[in-house]
Amino acid sequence: MMNSESAIGIFDSGIGGLTVLKEVSRILPHENIIYLGDTARVPYGIRSPETVTRYSFECTGFLLKQNIKLLVVACNTVSAISLQRIRESVSIPVIGVIQPGARAAVSSTKNKKIGIIGTETTIKSNAYVNAIKSLDRSIEVFGLPCPLFVPLVEEGWTDGAIAQLVAEKYLKGIADKGADTLVLGCTHYPLLRAVIQDVMRGVHLIDSAVETAKVVRDMLPSADHTGSAGMTRTRRFFVTDSPGKFIAVGGSFLQEEIKNIEKIELP
Amino acid sequence: MMNSESAIGIFDSGIGGLTVLKEVSRILPHENIIYLGDTARVPYGIRSPETVTRYSFECTGFLLKQNIKLLVVACNTVSAISLQRIRESVSIPVIGVIQPGARAAVSSTKNKKIGIIGTETTIKSNAYVNAIKSLDRSIEVFGLPCPLFVPLVEEGWTDGAIAQLVAEKYLKGIADKGADTLVLGCTHYPLLRAVIQDVMRGVHLIDSAVETAKVVRDMLPSADHTGSAGMTRTRRFFVTDSPGKFIAVGGSFLQEEIKNIEKIELP
Repeated sequence: MMNSESAIGIFDSGIGGLTVLKEVSRILPHENIIYLGDTARVPYGIRSPETVTRYSFECTGFLLKQNIKLLVVACNTVSAISLQRIRESVSIPVIGVIQPGARAAVSSTKNKKIGIIGTETTIKSNAYVNAIKSLDRSIEVFGLPCPLFVPLVEEGWTDGAIAQLVAEKYLKGIADKGADTLVLGCTHYPLLRAVIQDVMRGVHLIDSAVETAKVVRDMLPSADHTGSAGMTRTRRFFVTDSPGKFIAVGGSFLQEEIKNIEKIELP
Repeated sequence: MMNSESAIGIFDSGIGGLTVLKEVSRILPHENIIYLGDTARVPYGIRSPETVTRYSFECTGFLLKQNIKLLVVACNTVSAISLQRIRESVSIPVIGVIQPGARAAVSSTKNKKIGIIGTETTIKSNAYVNAIKSLDRSIEVFGLPCPLFVPLVEEGWTDGAIAQLVAEKYLKGIADKGADTLVLGCTHYPLLRAVIQDVMRGVHLIDSAVETAKVVRDMLPSADHTGSAGMTRTRRFFVTDSPGKFIAVGGSFLQEEIKNIEKIELP
């Protein structure tokens, strides 16, 4: 049984998952949320599957101790690599970001050609390809890693000539293949949405954060959606490195000040 | 007493330190070398000083167990943050990359204006500024973090329009200040040397890897410089994540194939 007072737990390798937290907050404004960013070991997307799995179990273990009622794996890399194993190891609902994004992409495509962009490990895992093919085997899927997008966002260079050139260089191949739908398969990428849309004119962009938040809402009892009168929601943030940079860059993700933050050690 | 058969130990957060290994190999071709890249936790340059110190002690501990005769800290971030504490904790000579680069820059500058580029943590530490000022208090030093340079190198985009624009955007401020000498204060940066030189016309670039290798040579008994006839050198590589990417990208750093590599766990 879910206790409606318990928090939703969200974790990511770093600050990227804040795009998911923001969407969950928007459509479920009364929920308490605990966010964990494993900032001492970010980025996960360049690491091997075994290492990603080990780290993700440590994050899960920490959040379970906070007595969460539902776990959101707001990291595409972890969702791609170890979601199933996390699900099997815990008794609360676990929601990843791949399945919601894949489903929205399948609903969106008219010409049955979908592009996926993400980190190296996410793309190599074929998780989006498998999720899409299991819904509609006839769809063609083109996956492409874009490793420079995350550092561009972290640097705050989300528009201008450099972001434009990097986006053109990465996305040309996918544009040439005629995909009508592109999944932003990394939680940092929505911050580059304008530049990506400019390069991919007329292509429908799928934001996994938005799609994942909808699934979270659907998983909770409808009584939780509105909250009781006078209820005040809480936000708690945990990071594994000093919180300075998380507060600075994370603020631009959330578009609100990050308070109530604490450094912890994993494992 | 140094045992000339023992290896030189080199560590870095990732593959960057291979530029140092390459220079040490070039001027000391008969030395055995053990290299450790902490690839499961790269990059160090975005992490807090406490975290960097903890990781660097774990790397040092591992190399000491391999019975090395001399330790090279081939990571600017670690050299900036925790070199002194490592030195105090071990009985073999420890060489960092900051002091050699700073000394070469001081010898090079005519107008007493030196630029330093490096990771965020290296620049914030003021380690280069302090090292230069302790040699000549009248020199002006301009430090600038260039966080996108490392991912550019890791992506292999070391020339072309994007590298050029990124270099221009970062370096314009330093060029405007009239520095006649620029220290490449990160072991990845020598791979961007051509682009950086193009933006910084007429400015003398200091490569810490080259300068550090000279200090290593000076620290060893001169008998070691030539080696005995018929001696074959060994190279051993250790990484903390799967070696696939290290072998692929590292090959372009070393310009030779990486063999004899093993994955370990730290701590």
